[in-house]
Amino acid sequence: MFDWLDVRAGAREKAGLRRRLVPRSADPEVLDLAGNDYLGLARDPRVVAAAEAAARRWGAGSTGSRLVTGTVDAHAELERDLADFCGVESALVFSSGYLANLGTLSALGGPGTLMVADEYDHASLIDGLRLSRSDRLRVAHRDVTAVAAALRDRSRRRALVVTDSVFSVDGDLAPLAELAAVCREHAAGLVIDDAHGLGVLGPGGRGGPAAAGIAGRPDVVVTATLSKSLGSQGGVVLGPARVVRHLVETARSFIFDTGLAPASVGAAAEALAVLRREPELADRVRASARSLAERLRAAGLDAAEPAGAVVSVRAPSAAEAVGWAARCAEAGVAVGCFRPPSVPDHVSRLRLTARSDLTARELDRVAAVLVAAAPARAARPIAT
Amino acid sequence: MFDWLDVRAGAREKAGLRRRLVPRSADPEVLDLAGNDYLGLARDPRVVAAAEAAARRWGAGSTGSRLVTGTVDAHAELERDLADFCGVESALVFSSGYLANLGTLSALGGPGTLMVADEYDHASLIDGLRLSRSDRLRVAHRDVTAVAAALRDRSRRRALVVTDSVFSVDGDLAPLAELAAVCREHAAGLVIDDAHGLGVLGPGGRGGPAAAGIAGRPDVVVTATLSKSLGSQGGVVLGPARVVRHLVETARSFIFDTGLAPASVGAAAEALAVLRREPELADRVRASARSLAERLRAAGLDAAEPAGAVVSVRAPSAAEAVGWAARCAEAGVAVGCFRPPSVPDHVSRLRLTARSDLTARELDRVAAVLVAAAPARAARPIAT
Repeated sequence: MFDWLDVRAGAREKAGLRRRLVPRSADPEVLDLAGNDYLGLARDPRVVAAAEAAARRWGAGSTGSRLVTGTVDAHAELERDLADFCGVESALVFSSGYLANLGTLSALGGPGTLMVADEYDHASLIDGLRLSRSDRLRVAHRDVTAVAAALRDRSRRRALVVTDSVFSVDGDLAPLAELAAVCREHAAGLVIDDAHGLGVLGPGGRGGPAAAGIAGRPDVVVTATLSKSLGSQGGVVLGPARVVRHLVETARSFIFDTGLAPASVGAAAEALAVLRREPELADRVRASARSLAERLRAAGLDAAEPAGAVVSVRAPSAAEAVGWAARCAEAGVAVGCFRPPSVPDHVSRLRLTARSDLTARELDRVAAVLVAAAPARAARPIAT
Repeated sequence: MFDWLDVRAGAREKAGLRRRLVPRSADPEVLDLAGNDYLGLARDPRVVAAAEAAARRWGAGSTGSRLVTGTVDAHAELERDLADFCGVESALVFSSGYLANLGTLSALGGPGTLMVADEYDHASLIDGLRLSRSDRLRVAHRDVTAVAAALRDRSRRRALVVTDSVFSVDGDLAPLAELAAVCREHAAGLVIDDAHGLGVLGPGGRGGPAAAGIAGRPDVVVTATLSKSLGSQGGVVLGPARVVRHLVETARSFIFDTGLAPASVGAAAEALAVLRREPELADRVRASARSLAERLRAAGLDAAEPAGAVVSVRAPSAAEAVGWAARCAEAGVAVGCFRPPSVPDHVSRLRLTARSDLTARELDRVAAVLVAAAPARAARPIAT
């Protein structure tokens, strides 16, 4: 699938156009069920201290593109750590997960490529598809048969299947192992956005691909954020070394963007170290989410079964979702409120995110507040 | 020009779909002429201390989208400060300048809009044009007549002219006042990427639009970075309040991205405070750049006249540019090396960036190293 990348790399080298990364030496009293700090590490004193130390050592900003002055030792170390943790050859840190997705898809796609995307894929993947100028096909949510048919019937030689691992709206899981098998059968690549999987799914939080047994495969590219479980900011691409090299050399959102700030790099690295030492954090956040969903369903609310940390509860209308969330906030529980166009099926939702440090008592309180604040029509199934 | 934004805002409000930002309470021994830390503030102890304080106060990450949990007081304060400093109604901070440009153009454009862009515009503007699905026209570099003709002959009612202020490759200046006049005459909006102008051009570093006398106009939208003169990370959009509101409610790269990390927000705010107290920093960086370009031209090198901090020197070929930059690095002077596809005219360049804290002695040293390291063919004009 990716052999052509090496050919391009060779041609650039020949033309004197090779690029290398050269590291520069050197209150709320509210109960938060709206943020993505799944492991509670954003405010962990060890993580904050690492952010401070990195700012003192390297400065407040990275001062340039990763290819010019924007790479410091800490970027390279973090990339090695992340690749090792996730069981892949190589990793590349971007300043945001959004830009990681844009760069990956635009650099790996193009007019000669078919991209097959789940209709519930994240906005940054969809924008990446558009930017890539590939032939594009959206398929029904989690529909492996449709993906297989699209790959089998394609006129393009190259193809990529593009999916979230945990979908951000309903918190459900993509059929990653099945998609990988279909991709292999049809000589296609698989791009997985594991933003909500890293730190939550798999052994010790090694992510959705590790949980599905497909981490490190040569035809799989994973993107993720450093801003959710790792409590910091930024994005990362994890995959074969040839893919990472191709991104370094051609991905516009990598080349033409300022590198991630040292403080954010330091924080993410320390959060990863904490997760390695405390692998139970990942189990705990999943248990919290399942427990919360059970309590809500027991009260008759339309809560989806969570694969990871995201617990989604359908609301009868956008206006009722807004009112519901506002009443929760008044009662001291912050929850997310997703409305069109952020919901692909036009059904508004409350979106709760579990954390590994939520106690049983806090989960009780959240469920009680949600139920008491619910609009009258919420205790019936909501039609799509 | 932007009246239709209010209509859309009203319709969303009516549909219960309004969104609001609710702040969460809350060695090198090498001489660096490659980075974009124009005012030397990235390592300023006051700026670093502000980054640390913000991380301690709010955590290492912002934990979510700006519209969910990713806005803290510091974001809102920084936005007020930036708007006030630049003389505009409103400002909106993104996690990167790249995403600010994508969000601005995709939210302000669309199939019913013509976008007219300078052929040398930054990659993030070009990607923004593509994502916007507008009709697109690239015009010759700095060609106001071509812009006027495109606006006059257009079939679309809405039109935007899109330009860098200081172009990143050659460091030259767009004819901002002339473009603004043409836009006004033809009822078009003007989007200016002032990434290399903020902190460098205009009174006290208030930027390219202030220097051109067009800051705060109702038909002008300015984007910029917090990662260059302000020594931090992130991007900002500066303009009419209605535009900022529209972005908050519709810009995908704002809505679906994690908010800028508190440390980077704190650093940028302190850097701006330093610049207010020391407005001479902006004058100094421009003087440094001019002085450097003079020295290089006196030695026969093909250095462009710098409008701001960027000094560009043409090289005979990509390979010779690489060798030249490598010899400079060996001699202790880091310079940027821009090669295709980062240069729109396919002419490779060394790219030097001045800083306000460079001494005359350091400028002498830089010029001596550049000249001694130059390839034989560099001391003649380089053909485009």
